Amino acid sequence: MLTIDSFADVAARYQVFFFDAFGVLKNSHGLIPGIPDTFAYLRENQKQFYILTNDASRSPQQLAESYWRMGLMDITPDNIISSGMLAREYLELKVNQGTVAYLGTEDSAHYIESTERKALSISELNLDAIGDINALVMLDDEGFDWNTDLNKATNLLRRRNIPVIVANTDATYPTSKTQVAIAIGGVADMLESIVGKQFIRFGKPDAQMFMFAYERVMEQNPALGKKDIVMIGDTLRTDISGGNKFGLDTVLVLTGNIPAEDAEIRIRSTGIIPTYVCESAVIG
Amino acid sequence: MLTIDSFADVAARYQVFFFDAFGVLKNSHGLIPGIPDTFAYLRENQKQFYILTNDASRSPQQLAESYWRMGLMDITPDNIISSGMLAREYLELKVNQGTVAYLGTEDSAHYIESTERKALSISELNLDAIGDINALVMLDDEGFDWNTDLNKATNLLRRRNIPVIVANTDATYPTSKTQVAIAIGGVADMLESIVGKQFIRFGKPDAQMFMFAYERVMEQNPALGKKDIVMIGDTLRTDISGGNKFGLDTVLVLTGNIPAEDAEIRIRSTGIIPTYVCESAVIG
Amino acid sequence: MLTIDSFADVAARYQVFFFDAFGVLKNSHGLIPGIPDTFAYLRENQKQFYILTNDASRSPQQLAESYWRMGLMDITPDNIISSGMLAREYLELKVNQGTVAYLGTEDSAHYIESTERKALSISELNLDAIGDINALVMLDDEGFDWNTDLNKATNLLRRRNIPVIVANTDATYPTSKTQVAIAIGGVADMLESIVGKQFIRFGKPDAQMFMFAYERVMEQNPALGKKDIVMIGDTLRTDISGGNKFGLDTVLVLTGNIPAEDAEIRIRSTGIIPTYVCESAVIG
Amino acid sequence: MLTIDSFADVAARYQVFFFDAFGVLKNSHGLIPGIPDTFAYLRENQKQFYILTNDASRSPQQLAESYWRMGLMDITPDNIISSGMLAREYLELKVNQGTVAYLGTEDSAHYIESTERKALSISELNLDAIGDINALVMLDDEGFDWNTDLNKATNLLRRRNIPVIVANTDATYPTSKTQVAIAIGGVADMLESIVGKQFIRFGKPDAQMFMFAYERVMEQNPALGKKDIVMIGDTLRTDISGGNKFGLDTVLVLTGNIPAEDAEIRIRSTGIIPTYVCESAVIG
Repeated sequence: MLTIDSFADVAARYQVFFFDAFGVLKNSHGLIPGIPDTFAYLRENQKQFYILTNDASRSPQQLAESYWRMGLMDITPDNIISSGMLAREYLELKVNQGTVAYLGTEDSAHYIESTERKALSISELNLDAIGDINALVMLDDEGFDWNTDLNKATNLLRRRNIPVIVANTDATYPTSKTQVAIAIGGVADMLESIVGKQFIRFGKPDAQMFMFAYERVMEQNPALGKKDIVMIGDTLRTDISGGNKFGLDTVLVLTGNIPAEDAEIRIRSTGIIPTYVCESAVIG
Repeated sequence: MLTIDSFADVAARYQVFFFDAFGVLKNSHGLIPGIPDTFAYLRENQKQFYILTNDASRSPQQLAESYWRMGLMDITPDNIISSGMLAREYLELKVNQGTVAYLGTEDSAHYIESTERKALSISELNLDAIGDINALVMLDDEGFDWNTDLNKATNLLRRRNIPVIVANTDATYPTSKTQVAIAIGGVADMLESIVGKQFIRFGKPDAQMFMFAYERVMEQNPALGKKDIVMIGDTLRTDISGGNKFGLDTVLVLTGNIPAEDAEIRIRSTGIIPTYVCESAVIG
Repeated sequence: MLTIDSFADVAARYQVFFFDAFGVLKNSHGLIPGIPDTFAYLRENQKQFYILTNDASRSPQQLAESYWRMGLMDITPDNIISSGMLAREYLELKVNQGTVAYLGTEDSAHYIESTERKALSISELNLDAIGDINALVMLDDEGFDWNTDLNKATNLLRRRNIPVIVANTDATYPTSKTQVAIAIGGVADMLESIVGKQFIRFGKPDAQMFMFAYERVMEQNPALGKKDIVMIGDTLRTDISGGNKFGLDTVLVLTGNIPAEDAEIRIRSTGIIPTYVCESAVIG
Repeated sequence: MLTIDSFADVAARYQVFFFDAFGVLKNSHGLIPGIPDTFAYLRENQKQFYILTNDASRSPQQLAESYWRMGLMDITPDNIISSGMLAREYLELKVNQGTVAYLGTEDSAHYIESTERKALSISELNLDAIGDINALVMLDDEGFDWNTDLNKATNLLRRRNIPVIVANTDATYPTSKTQVAIAIGGVADMLESIVGKQFIRFGKPDAQMFMFAYERVMEQNPALGKKDIVMIGDTLRTDISGGNKFGLDTVLVLTGNIPAEDAEIRIRSTGIIPTYVCESAVIG
């Protein structure tokens, strides 16, 4: 039988907290009740925290502001590690000129733009003028017409052998208590299979996401190590699998993807084993 | 080195011809030059033929008429075996009441409608009234809005455990000499992976497509057998793989998917080995 | 909630019965208690039956004898359709000369040997003399040394572009109430992924298996149709999925792979929906 | 057309070199001719280097000694990053008691043993006494009997929900100029698919392998960054894909996996694009 641990007991053992956002801190109704108490506890006990999110649709600044509007003032842009930041680092290191085409909203293009690179929405792309397109970045499922623009992206990739960066590894995201929408990660799987080329994916469970946060921890306090960090998430395939592989202890919370009655069978059938299972990330 | 055979020599050895349509008989410009001579040869020598197509967007009658408009009068609706016909047979045997939701054009819905079943486009579906939806059929990539209706289909399949029938196993289809469009088969792969349920696919290379044509051959002349039939196609993964597995001899023609210079490496790298390779299906 | 039907009630509605063997008629202890009564019922009511098995390790004659030894005398070799028979038909139609290499026991090689073809176990193969090897057939997980002979098979397939036929689509098979062994189908998946070529698989859920049995039904009584046939199995992925797609009604029985308490969640999570669920295939 | 660059020109641009081993520094005949000159150049120019290898069959000490025996004395154990080291780090962080079962040779078990953990070869495992087995590690394809021990591993994983660590992501490795053997990574893919649970894989192209080497670079010289490092390999799927994603420039050399005449088509068909292509990693 599955043991349910008290999150307060678990929290006492760690110095640094990596949180998933959706299903852990918030859901489609807003903040999960009690979460502000958890952040008060972290503040009072001077514990570090980071939010690791596969959401490249908005900048860290915009993501932080969305918490402020819900009344959670503890979260600053510096606390947020988004998969879009890894896409931006890749572009900075590897694509330093020309135009980068993208699928997503104008907000999401924030991760592309720089003095060296021009960002161009696939919806604006002319297939007869693609000679200076040096990469395609998939950022968000909104901001373009799927019927025409996914076909355009397919034909672009048949003609130009360029890297394709996917800044979101999720297949779906919840839009209400009962409904989901297809995420750009799910769309990317389709395009990758159709064009037969290997895309570059950033986001949990990939180690680079955890590394990015880990480097910030080291900058703050080099005396800490992986043993001092716990990853808290509601999804086995991304949060728990990625945290485990990076060598962190992990907490599965039951406020999101996985209802309490399914937790045991899901852990058994996937073989993805969290260190702890807690009702929620609420201390109180 | 790859041996290229004369199609006239190959044709002389068989009594029955199974043709793929696109890339063999026609391309985006119309009939492939010389193809009417092949059908004259078949007529004069009283050889049977069938067209096996993964195209469920139109009825056999409409497909035959499209050949008539291009000047090829030999093809009747009875000569055409489309993957849509297998979807219709499935519905007749297994879904004999209620409403069948579909993704596709109104023309494609021809394969669903009957006195017992109502067809309903996903674009008309109300997610709050899905109690009598007994199947979802994916027929064509046109006729619906991908952004909204693929999300609708995803949510329908999360709430109702119903069979999903995919009447096209292709991932893309050509729209011009250099461009392709994503086919409903490619969209189906994405939805299947997202909802995590097994879909039912009809179309080459699946044996049922060949069986359907084979039964027609047997009705015409029970003395014939698989040794008398040859499958002619331009695609290794569907036409040649399916024909081989069904026990037929196969001809890869180089007028479609595979340019002559790539044929050898494609055969070697896939391990899908046609009995013959010919320049085209033209006798002349 | 899942409805459990009486197998006697279901049986009364059909004229022809397709049975899976393991988990339906027998298990690791012998015949499932009560199964002889089912065959007495079929005999008395003059109903046809066939056993469709993904077991190519023995000939239909040997398989029938194994039932006789357990006291079930109704089953003749003619009632048995094994995936090995499809492999043999393929070889007869497509590989009519030279040597066919195989992985399996000497008993399993029965499906290869003929006056035109020589069978050669991979364990006897000399990699320096492979010029006349025209196919590789994977029949059984026993009869060869995995360490050396799977490496031999890999190197054979890198040097000769020949068809590979897999006469068993199962990944594992039970060896006792609690243990399983890896089946040749599981080994084939590994080799296929390693050599990167497409193998030809015979066995449920593939339509050709059902077609083979269906043709026998038609020979016995051409007035019957798919509506008169029911497929009975313990495995969703092979028996039920294949039966459904072929257009047959299907019965999931709970005497094998799926314990009663898991049936509902498995049906829901896979989307493979049997027409009926029964405790067993026992009439009594 | 593919441009071939001079390795000497490329080398001049970087301060740190990450090398793959097999196909870059050595092949089945020994050192690739001229490689000692490359290491003399690195020594004379005080450039750092690391060897990143998906080989967990031997310790860094044993791997370094194998270079010494071939006459290359520049390589010390500290220069070698093996996937086995990542497996060991995982065990140290996450499995700190009980017994760890393994598939591999006794030499490979070096990566498991510690004062807290006992290592047990699957060949010694008694399936009736598995209560203290807390992980399974797959290290090497030798040292066990595949027929019996892979079945044992399958049954172990059906009964105990424990993490499975795969310390090698390669599917095959070369044993001579023309032959390959199945690597433990290929065997792991089969077991993972059979038991249906998610395994934890360490090795290129995974970011953790590169991070491990990168941390050593930072310890030596914190002023360096990813722009100063180049990854040199003969395999697109591991060396080049992993290096690119980590943000490094990459060199594909043609002394291993990919013959010169295939390089262009492989790069185009996979979409894995090296920064440079060079004949070899030889400077001279």
